[in-house]
Amino acid sequence: MEFEESGIGEECGVFGCVAAGEWPTQLEVAQILTLGLVALQHRGQESAGIVTSNGSTPPTYTTLKGMGLVSTAFKPEDLLKLKYGNLGIGHTRYSTTGISELQNCQPFVVDTLHGKIAVAHNGELVNAAALRKKVMRHGVGLSTSSDSELITQLLALTPPMEEVDTPDWVARIKNLMTETPTSYSLLVMHKDVIYAVRDPYGNRPLSIGRLVEKKKGDTEGWVVSSESCSFQSIGARYHREVQPGEIVQISKHGIKSLSVVPRPEGDPPAFCIFEYVYFARPDSIFEGQMVYTVRQRCGRQLAIEAPTDADVVSTVPESATPAALGYAQESGLPYVEVLCKNRYVGRTFIQPNTRLRQLGVAKKFGALTDNFAGKRVVLIDDSIVRGNTISPIIKLLKEAGATEVHIRVASPPIRFPCYMGINIPTKEELIANKPEFEDIAGYIGATSVRYLSVEGLVAAVQGGIESCGEKEQISSRTKMSKRIGHCTACLTGKYPVELEW
Amino acid sequence: MEFEESGIGEECGVFGCVAAGEWPTQLEVAQILTLGLVALQHRGQESAGIVTSNGSTPPTYTTLKGMGLVSTAFKPEDLLKLKYGNLGIGHTRYSTTGISELQNCQPFVVDTLHGKIAVAHNGELVNAAALRKKVMRHGVGLSTSSDSELITQLLALTPPMEEVDTPDWVARIKNLMTETPTSYSLLVMHKDVIYAVRDPYGNRPLSIGRLVEKKKGDTEGWVVSSESCSFQSIGARYHREVQPGEIVQISKHGIKSLSVVPRPEGDPPAFCIFEYVYFARPDSIFEGQMVYTVRQRCGRQLAIEAPTDADVVSTVPESATPAALGYAQESGLPYVEVLCKNRYVGRTFIQPNTRLRQLGVAKKFGALTDNFAGKRVVLIDDSIVRGNTISPIIKLLKEAGATEVHIRVASPPIRFPCYMGINIPTKEELIANKPEFEDIAGYIGATSVRYLSVEGLVAAVQGGIESCGEKEQISSRTKMSKRIGHCTACLTGKYPVELEW
Amino acid sequence: MEFEESGIGEECGVFGCVAAGEWPTQLEVAQILTLGLVALQHRGQESAGIVTSNGSTPPTYTTLKGMGLVSTAFKPEDLLKLKYGNLGIGHTRYSTTGISELQNCQPFVVDTLHGKIAVAHNGELVNAAALRKKVMRHGVGLSTSSDSELITQLLALTPPMEEVDTPDWVARIKNLMTETPTSYSLLVMHKDVIYAVRDPYGNRPLSIGRLVEKKKGDTEGWVVSSESCSFQSIGARYHREVQPGEIVQISKHGIKSLSVVPRPEGDPPAFCIFEYVYFARPDSIFEGQMVYTVRQRCGRQLAIEAPTDADVVSTVPESATPAALGYAQESGLPYVEVLCKNRYVGRTFIQPNTRLRQLGVAKKFGALTDNFAGKRVVLIDDSIVRGNTISPIIKLLKEAGATEVHIRVASPPIRFPCYMGINIPTKEELIANKPEFEDIAGYIGATSVRYLSVEGLVAAVQGGIESCGEKEQISSRTKMSKRIGHCTACLTGKYPVELEW
Amino acid sequence: MEFEESGIGEECGVFGCVAAGEWPTQLEVAQILTLGLVALQHRGQESAGIVTSNGSTPPTYTTLKGMGLVSTAFKPEDLLKLKYGNLGIGHTRYSTTGISELQNCQPFVVDTLHGKIAVAHNGELVNAAALRKKVMRHGVGLSTSSDSELITQLLALTPPMEEVDTPDWVARIKNLMTETPTSYSLLVMHKDVIYAVRDPYGNRPLSIGRLVEKKKGDTEGWVVSSESCSFQSIGARYHREVQPGEIVQISKHGIKSLSVVPRPEGDPPAFCIFEYVYFARPDSIFEGQMVYTVRQRCGRQLAIEAPTDADVVSTVPESATPAALGYAQESGLPYVEVLCKNRYVGRTFIQPNTRLRQLGVAKKFGALTDNFAGKRVVLIDDSIVRGNTISPIIKLLKEAGATEVHIRVASPPIRFPCYMGINIPTKEELIANKPEFEDIAGYIGATSVRYLSVEGLVAAVQGGIESCGEKEQISSRTKMSKRIGHCTACLTGKYPVELEW
Repeated sequence: MEFEESGIGEECGVFGCVAAGEWPTQLEVAQILTLGLVALQHRGQESAGIVTSNGSTPPTYTTLKGMGLVSTAFKPEDLLKLKYGNLGIGHTRYSTTGISELQNCQPFVVDTLHGKIAVAHNGELVNAAALRKKVMRHGVGLSTSSDSELITQLLALTPPMEEVDTPDWVARIKNLMTETPTSYSLLVMHKDVIYAVRDPYGNRPLSIGRLVEKKKGDTEGWVVSSESCSFQSIGARYHREVQPGEIVQISKHGIKSLSVVPRPEGDPPAFCIFEYVYFARPDSIFEGQMVYTVRQRCGRQLAIEAPTDADVVSTVPESATPAALGYAQESGLPYVEVLCKNRYVGRTFIQPNTRLRQLGVAKKFGALTDNFAGKRVVLIDDSIVRGNTISPIIKLLKEAGATEVHIRVASPPIRFPCYMGINIPTKEELIANKPEFEDIAGYIGATSVRYLSVEGLVAAVQGGIESCGEKEQISSRTKMSKRIGHCTACLTGKYPVELEW
Repeated sequence: MEFEESGIGEECGVFGCVAAGEWPTQLEVAQILTLGLVALQHRGQESAGIVTSNGSTPPTYTTLKGMGLVSTAFKPEDLLKLKYGNLGIGHTRYSTTGISELQNCQPFVVDTLHGKIAVAHNGELVNAAALRKKVMRHGVGLSTSSDSELITQLLALTPPMEEVDTPDWVARIKNLMTETPTSYSLLVMHKDVIYAVRDPYGNRPLSIGRLVEKKKGDTEGWVVSSESCSFQSIGARYHREVQPGEIVQISKHGIKSLSVVPRPEGDPPAFCIFEYVYFARPDSIFEGQMVYTVRQRCGRQLAIEAPTDADVVSTVPESATPAALGYAQESGLPYVEVLCKNRYVGRTFIQPNTRLRQLGVAKKFGALTDNFAGKRVVLIDDSIVRGNTISPIIKLLKEAGATEVHIRVASPPIRFPCYMGINIPTKEELIANKPEFEDIAGYIGATSVRYLSVEGLVAAVQGGIESCGEKEQISSRTKMSKRIGHCTACLTGKYPVELEW
Repeated sequence: MEFEESGIGEECGVFGCVAAGEWPTQLEVAQILTLGLVALQHRGQESAGIVTSNGSTPPTYTTLKGMGLVSTAFKPEDLLKLKYGNLGIGHTRYSTTGISELQNCQPFVVDTLHGKIAVAHNGELVNAAALRKKVMRHGVGLSTSSDSELITQLLALTPPMEEVDTPDWVARIKNLMTETPTSYSLLVMHKDVIYAVRDPYGNRPLSIGRLVEKKKGDTEGWVVSSESCSFQSIGARYHREVQPGEIVQISKHGIKSLSVVPRPEGDPPAFCIFEYVYFARPDSIFEGQMVYTVRQRCGRQLAIEAPTDADVVSTVPESATPAALGYAQESGLPYVEVLCKNRYVGRTFIQPNTRLRQLGVAKKFGALTDNFAGKRVVLIDDSIVRGNTISPIIKLLKEAGATEVHIRVASPPIRFPCYMGINIPTKEELIANKPEFEDIAGYIGATSVRYLSVEGLVAAVQGGIESCGEKEQISSRTKMSKRIGHCTACLTGKYPVELEW
Repeated sequence: MEFEESGIGEECGVFGCVAAGEWPTQLEVAQILTLGLVALQHRGQESAGIVTSNGSTPPTYTTLKGMGLVSTAFKPEDLLKLKYGNLGIGHTRYSTTGISELQNCQPFVVDTLHGKIAVAHNGELVNAAALRKKVMRHGVGLSTSSDSELITQLLALTPPMEEVDTPDWVARIKNLMTETPTSYSLLVMHKDVIYAVRDPYGNRPLSIGRLVEKKKGDTEGWVVSSESCSFQSIGARYHREVQPGEIVQISKHGIKSLSVVPRPEGDPPAFCIFEYVYFARPDSIFEGQMVYTVRQRCGRQLAIEAPTDADVVSTVPESATPAALGYAQESGLPYVEVLCKNRYVGRTFIQPNTRLRQLGVAKKFGALTDNFAGKRVVLIDDSIVRGNTISPIIKLLKEAGATEVHIRVASPPIRFPCYMGINIPTKEELIANKPEFEDIAGYIGATSVRYLSVEGLVAAVQGGIESCGEKEQISSRTKMSKRIGHCTACLTGKYPVELEW
């Protein structure tokens, strides 16, 4: 919750689906795409889009886009238009720029000499400005400021198009990957194939699932998604992650790993550690481990690093709950609920000014007084960004009778901007960069404040990867990077690649 | 959650506000009414309405109504129209009839010989049919099927209107209360006064709060609300409940208990026990006790009545969570989360057919596999109505690796219809009345199923009232009924009054 | 057009339809009602409503209401709900009060001891205030300020309702007609019958048509409408007018004149003369004559009364065109078009302030320069109300090269308010009551201005009634008033009845 | 009207405005653009768009787009966003393809190495397919199927962009004009300049107007519009037409003719003759003559070519009215109105199937019986395309008492498709190409049918150009083509250029 109100947000979610077997199929691809996007809705609520293809030669593409949540953007009657799709990709968008327009809604579809391609993108190209200039120098006009249009035009531009040849989209994708190192998880649909692509640093997540016929267990199709949490809601089983740098071709014949574009010698992978801390849904699986479990480990680690003399442990509902339960387990303090949430208030980060945001806290939470009045409370939060939303919560608890409120944050202080797809306030707005940070407890009105260390966070994340190693199902054709690494740039300022601006 | 999907629903929420001190006041009455209704949104999502009065002679009333959630029904520009109100009442409606029309939206405003009155009502008159006939026999045409219009016409009809007299609305309200015993919590606004009324059985809740100026603690105004949970979000403090049968006058001069209409000799009060079990927000206070605490006690009682040999205790999020934590505390079993919820799916009970409802479960919950795979789970639910929503959840947990799933329900089986404001499925639809109920565990796919006993529920509810007796703040002018009693008709078939149809 | 921009407007249009033969019928009553209302759309654009009945015992009524034009208010999917109606009434509303709300939308449906009635009303009761008081003194609360609700409550009130009797709605309607002399054209639907009622003065129009099967000429049903112009669009033939004071019963068995309530001795009828001058559609028939023809006669009469030395005659399109053609025929001057209209601007009287209205003229009309540059133009208008819209048109013509612009108005100056259903500006706003009227030509920038005389208008209207006498088809059972009379109150201040306020 | 219902439609309207004098100016450019588009609304109702520029370095562009009529597409609050524009272009779109999407809405804005350009286009490129291939061969992906996007990318592509040079947009526009001969009237906005471009054949219209300060007559700005009819509504005066092949630069310093790209030796101009016959508003001026006057001449010519022994002449309102008045003048027969129109029905060509279209006629027109019952009617129409809409009108007149109905069409039969921006039904759908055409009178139920000859139409159009020669105001710097020529391809099959597909 804290994050939401601090203006930190994920850029996007992508989702694709290909029906297996003979086409036309009875599998309702458009319906599956819609449900898949609903499951990824936490990654973006600004707009949603779907493009389906019937897969024939030439293919017929059908596009559906709209502003707002998936449930608002697509009307039932609209979905009927898409019903003959045999494959398709979808996208749910979080606006980083503030310009909220239908024309920025993905997937982008462009017509090229080699036919139409549709592209859905999660991430942010670190060298976008240079690439825009390059494309425009070639004489191309760009109609939006989005990286996604840039990517489609880059795919169309190089290598030069030859009318006679069979289109080699894989070569174009590989070329794109040499032009920009990160960050992108990409779905490219061409006629009857979806290419699922993850940048060499693996900065954004991308997982593959298999649609399973309930009775016999036959494969009905394949799905690919920013997060595996979407698989259950459509009757799919987790298959594996797309690896950093990998291009996976998904067709009615199955999935095929075509290539793994390497990182520069010596560079470790750089999967965004904040996917674990905040963005991802707790039931998603990354690197073989459930996000919920990682968050619980962060809570345990925090209890070790920052023990508290108190009566009860609680959570800012509900993203911090696994960490709070972990803290309670490790510390032996009883876990109680101190706040209940009004479901009808909505994500308050939509609201335009700080005054309304503070009112938002009052509208949003009710104090469960009996559980903490007269007690010393350890309140676990998953992060503190600007420091302006935890403050009214502490006030609320104190007014309702808490004798002490100790804030324990299950991640380290955020100090640096992200250039790889996360919307973080400017350096000046981050509480950790302000003079007030020296007395952060006084500033936010807490009895004490302690953060998880960077080392603690990394240990909580990476400890699990090794122990869960056996569970990973990786196709034999794919060479996985054995090295473990995560992007902690917003905490440490150490970016995985040099930034070109 | 289970309830939501079973079509059980509260009828309505009412909220009123009067600014204290000299008028016109700077207090934003319309804004407070809006926030108050947002806090009562769980009691009704079909439509919302607000009427404000400037309190002058004659008064100017301004009305704002709309379909859907408060956030949809009122637009910011509309609220500006209401800005000069010095007092006002609001209503949020849950449709029991399926006819969802703006004309049923409350508050009702009617013009009478004694000026305009506005009425907001929560409840359902047990003798509505007879009263309708009476009113119509008098020659009045009724334009809706709602009890609320009926109430307003009854208020206008008797005693006969005399043009010359000062209007005696209190006499009219008392007369109304002799005509219909229950169920109603009512706000009647006339010019510069709000009358807050609760039926003699106290079937529906109604609480009074005081708006407090932060620095000096001065009284800025008074609010009255179906539930006290709304007070915090507008900066008000809980003052007391309106007592069964009581008429409280609220004006800029303060609150005044005008009368307490008695029940028939020997009849106990009959506050709806399901407000504790399911409807109310957990941070609301009824009869001196916090709803959350009562639910937690139900869980403890359930653990005593129905112990289980299992590994973990969990909840169907999130209304059953306090009972689950109570069960865990009493039983000593560890509490874990087994399901995470997709916030973007919405209340699935809106959806029209059973197939979509089942899909709704899949869209709605993700399994937190690590927490229960290979384990025996006690899953606490707050109630089972039709039995068609818990079933897919059990299936989901088993497919994800739970070895046993024991369902423990923190309330007794529902067997009878409610005629006092709660929308319950027909007798035939209730799972407890079906032949399948004999093997309910087999029917829903659970390892075992146990319910809380009626006696256990009543003990959990009433045990707390005595222990919390001291906390109640009751104005000295109000005689409170010392007897304790609750309506358990939907569980036992014993209705508090004879039903007239 | 001039009128529209001056804020003069009709109150409403009413339309009813009963399918003949056995029920359920295949006749699409709801579709016919909709088309009928579209044909009456010029009488009101604020809201529209339809109520259908299946005519069974007890009847099922279905209601559809919405804001705006019929095409906006009713969606195709909504109309499907009404498809089983065997009879129904509809209403299209013009707001006179400025309070534009769905709850004022007609028809009103109320439940009474004798079942549900639905009422649609065109007109305005001259003694509404006294009647409201009377109803309220009886103890009835009124939820709107509309006369239509008042009428429904009056119908329910007297004579007193007896539960045992067969309802005698005709007695109730007759009683209503003794309580209020004018103005109303009324449709009252009860179960399987529509009563079509016109006030004793016949102030508002009401005509009956017969739905005809194309091939054999059989009667498929009956319709009743404010204007006969609606008959053609639904395949109905003009039958006759409802006479002043007449109550006509329309059922599947046909039409039946039940009663003619007389006027006070010596009072002539008072059909609104402005229906001829401005409001009605030119193809409607009143008193046996086509409105277009009356307007053309007004133009001829105007040419006799106010001849002009000029080169061409033209019109302010398009309501004044018949008068302009009449003027051209009588005067021998050539008729040309001087203005073309932008169809996409809409009725500009919706616009809120005078500045936008003047801009509206510029947006609305284009000058057809070739037709009048260097010429002396006689410009016919049908009326001048405030004088603020003809002025920019004259300016436009002069700037485009007209050497002289002579305004000839095909009706007399409006000087008095209407209390019988027409929305006219206040006395002070009427140009004819302002000092500027002495030099009206100078004020509006015309070379000269002349109006039709009251006598001339009456002669143009009544001359035709005698000559067309033979055409009227009046049922033998109906005694028609042989005396001719029209309401000219807005021109002369002579109201047909004493005004009670 | 007939045309509308036949699915013939104009492609688009373009409008531009530059404020003169020092910037920022007080001239409300966005408001003027909106009003200008409203005046061009008859050229397209699908969507509307505006882009304004503040003209600074670098410029800030603001875009506003929406579906539907201008009044629907732009909300007042949206227009405020554009208020600081010093220049801007707008577009109103008619969909030829049936794909009605916001992304096809113009103007297109693209970012290039030389800054952003905005393009609005009326017309259709005859060699669009070849040009698309050329652009895509260069590696550009096209995101829409519209010519307008193609034009913007062509402008960006050649000549090659050099980062260092001052952008030479005029060279790019000239290059574009060598690549595609017709048809296009184009507005290209770059920073502080609008280039107004007309193709060498002058197929689509484009006129320039001067915004005049009322009192002193100073120049406040310049506007450019598809039709001059828009000038009056914004206080502008007609200046001149952009000549075929001409590029006019419009800036705050005034207008400047930069170049006239010639046609191939021997080719005459080819202004679309149907702009005169049907599309344009009657008060627009093309080639020095008012459209209304040309239509009147067509009526006179028709009376000479096809005289009729009849009693009255009338029109299918209202596009055929000038021709009907011309026919009446030439023939000496009296002109009367036979049909009145229901303003509230809307353009029925939106309706999807033929049955509803026929109902549309009934809903749309009322018969003015008195004017023609028992008479022989000459009914003038401006064109007959499919023949399915005139037929019910004839039936209506006959049923209402016309003894004969002679159809006289003020243009020749349409036999060929248009590839230059007009949406005409397929060859097979055109009534003139069907076997029924041999007995067209019998087919549509008329007493007789006669068309204007191609020679007669051309004479009516071109006769006026010579006679009106003196009136043209052409800047001395512009060399006008002295040769007269019009595109009559849809009538004769002779296209002005070879069609490349």
